Amino acid sequence: MSDPVMHLQRTLLADIPLARAMQLTVESFDGESLALAAPLAPNVNDKGCAFGGSLASLMTLAGWGLPRLALDAVGMEAEIYVQDSTIRYLAPVWHDFRVIARVAEGESLAAFVAALRDKGKARLRVDCRVPLPDGGDAATFEARFVALAKH
Amino acid sequence: MSDPVMHLQRTLLADIPLARAMQLTVESFDGESLALAAPLAPNVNDKGCAFGGSLASLMTLAGWGLPRLALDAVGMEAEIYVQDSTIRYLAPVWHDFRVIARVAEGESLAAFVAALRDKGKARLRVDCRVPLPDGGDAATFEARFVALAKH
Repeated sequence: MSDPVMHLQRTLLADIPLARAMQLTVESFDGESLALAAPLAPNVNDKGCAFGGSLASLMTLAGWGLPRLALDAVGMEAEIYVQDSTIRYLAPVWHDFRVIARVAEGESLAAFVAALRDKGKARLRVDCRVPLPDGGDAATFEARFVALAKH
Repeated sequence: MSDPVMHLQRTLLADIPLARAMQLTVESFDGESLALAAPLAPNVNDKGCAFGGSLASLMTLAGWGLPRLALDAVGMEAEIYVQDSTIRYLAPVWHDFRVIARVAEGESLAAFVAALRDKGKARLRVDCRVPLPDGGDAATFEARFVALAKH
């Protein structure tokens, strides 16, 4: 694991009890997409598949982690909040799962960082997906995050 | 607590590990609205307020509980899935919180139960809110659930 990935995982597990309960791990970050993972067992529902709230939580954390890593990379501090999210649950998840977050079409992490530096406030739209083992998505997530620079 | 409320709480805590981790309680059900609650401590984020994923999870469970209780009341069995949800996070939550779920405008639990009985499948739109102590909402949630009768 790279240092930023290890640092993000440590931060999420230290600060967010629900991330510990979900047994979240940060898998990878390539500068554009961030992958988080969780085992099924602590995230199961009454039907034996993944609980919608666990998928929502992991996608929210992946979406939040993307601007966080971009700011860490340039040494900027900010509070990042989720503003809104829309989730579509397309298929049940019967296995350990991962979520992959990317910046939405038409936006960039560079533009987000520049806006935060200029104005002390910036917004970022993020898309996430929960890939199925045989292709396709078990769930999709579209969300907006806002960052406020710390003074 | 009434029997259906006690039964729902027992079921959620028994079947969903994340509900236990969140220390969820079922507060009340009056036939139209269902209230769930959770303490802040196990649901906190890096900023010390309620984690968005915890709010999303509790609202998803409240929305799911509404058709569940309506079917329990008439002795019908069905699997209930969340199909999609949209959440708006309007204000941070710095305290223990509750969520209140209601059937969306223009729909009813009675019509939902009748549709499931007739067709073996039924949909229900649900609205939830996280009330703030001084009035207003910390978050709102609109979702669709689908129920499939068990044969």
